[in-house]
Amino acid sequence: MTKQELFENIKRKKSFLCVGLDTDINKIPDYLLSEEDPIYTFNKAIIDATAPYCVAFKPNAAFYEGEGIKGIWAMEKTIEYIRTKYPDQFIILDAKRGDIGNTSERYASSAFEKMKAHAITVAPYMGEDSVKPFLKYNGRWVILLALTSNKGSLDFQLMEDANGERLFEKVLKKSQEWASDEQMMYVVGATQGKMFEDIRKIAPDHFLLVPGVGAQGGSLEEVARYGMNKQCGLLVNSSRAIIYADNTEEFANAARAEAKKVQGEMARYLQAIIS
Amino acid sequence: MTKQELFENIKRKKSFLCVGLDTDINKIPDYLLSEEDPIYTFNKAIIDATAPYCVAFKPNAAFYEGEGIKGIWAMEKTIEYIRTKYPDQFIILDAKRGDIGNTSERYASSAFEKMKAHAITVAPYMGEDSVKPFLKYNGRWVILLALTSNKGSLDFQLMEDANGERLFEKVLKKSQEWASDEQMMYVVGATQGKMFEDIRKIAPDHFLLVPGVGAQGGSLEEVARYGMNKQCGLLVNSSRAIIYADNTEEFANAARAEAKKVQGEMARYLQAIIS
Repeated sequence: MTKQELFENIKRKKSFLCVGLDTDINKIPDYLLSEEDPIYTFNKAIIDATAPYCVAFKPNAAFYEGEGIKGIWAMEKTIEYIRTKYPDQFIILDAKRGDIGNTSERYASSAFEKMKAHAITVAPYMGEDSVKPFLKYNGRWVILLALTSNKGSLDFQLMEDANGERLFEKVLKKSQEWASDEQMMYVVGATQGKMFEDIRKIAPDHFLLVPGVGAQGGSLEEVARYGMNKQCGLLVNSSRAIIYADNTEEFANAARAEAKKVQGEMARYLQAIIS
Repeated sequence: MTKQELFENIKRKKSFLCVGLDTDINKIPDYLLSEEDPIYTFNKAIIDATAPYCVAFKPNAAFYEGEGIKGIWAMEKTIEYIRTKYPDQFIILDAKRGDIGNTSERYASSAFEKMKAHAITVAPYMGEDSVKPFLKYNGRWVILLALTSNKGSLDFQLMEDANGERLFEKVLKKSQEWASDEQMMYVVGATQGKMFEDIRKIAPDHFLLVPGVGAQGGSLEEVARYGMNKQCGLLVNSSRAIIYADNTEEFANAARAEAKKVQGEMARYLQAIIS
């Protein structure tokens, strides 16, 4: 999917919502556990319910790997389900990979050839040759960690060099030598709204994947105010607040209502850039 | 496995070799491809051949994930094989994980409960709460990326703050607030031998996992000279140079010969600390 296509989807659906599929076997409604593949069954219902209100889905690899082979199989089927039934959805494999070149090559083929995701989240710590193998796939995306939303982001990401430049700013700058905004996005944590101003100075045109709105406590209004650019440039993720909105047979309807509510708010913020 | 137990194994076997199981279906001998599970068959032969000369095995998750469900299954069986047949071997899942707390928890349960590895490699970029969930398992280890051996390590890991402290040094210092040397090791790249002096100033007692000797070009002699402490404190990994030493039916014998050669060199360096 190209950047322009993603923006067209955002305009058409008046949404820049990404639904995070952090599907936890211990949190889904009990009555689904008698299904042959409870995780996949849950995901299908969530996807069907929320697809009209979002432009992206983000399966979180950890939750599937944690269930072993069954979980991996559920993840593969989930991505295939989205690809075939909702081909306009942008699919992000949230895996935060990154290793030496020949190993990153394997993670890339796993994400893009086996899993057929459109994008994968990648950790920058090991530098250029750990990221580049993911960029060999035309039309696929790297979403590089820049500034995350967790407490631990303070430990290293805000480290300053002698000129006051912070590590996450170095990541934003250096990585622009590796790929353009047509193939790279950044993870930028939502609990630090004003940081978006600094980030937009360095990366004015890039899409930013913003976790942490909802359960992690970020403000959508603040993200939109400081982070939005002329092509929107934002994918805001919500996982738990949507997929676990309810724990009964009404879970999918509750997820739909929650996604619709967020989309409604997003539509208002999008008015500024959609004529 | 405790630090003391690991050191006892090193003394007994006169080796601090870790054999990296970066098993690539495209690189194993052709005649194995007719086996029901070629990756597992290859691994068993490599493990049997090299176990007398090493103290650790390191399956590289990327290579197994790249083969999908079959690969994951081969990885699970490989770890189980080592655990049951060679219970004195330290098993490192090389996965370089790291995410927000509730997600790292899942990676931790996957590595330690499902896969039953003794240790997992973890990326530090997201800080404390991304690492701590891995430390909740008694007797299991986090091996945190500090200074890697690849070219891209120059991009961010050597960034200096106003006092000249580098990012990898901050990682070494900060992370010692999270766990002791009884539960944490560090990945330190072998191609930068003199860096070991700086690292030993900050982490004198920790075990260091050193990749990059062999195919990646590091010098074992230099690593031992600058990196060894009184309890050895080193696990030196070799993957490709050992497991792909030969591509015929003799592959296991060739791997054995290569591991034995490295072990012989290690035995000489260990004389300084073993009475």
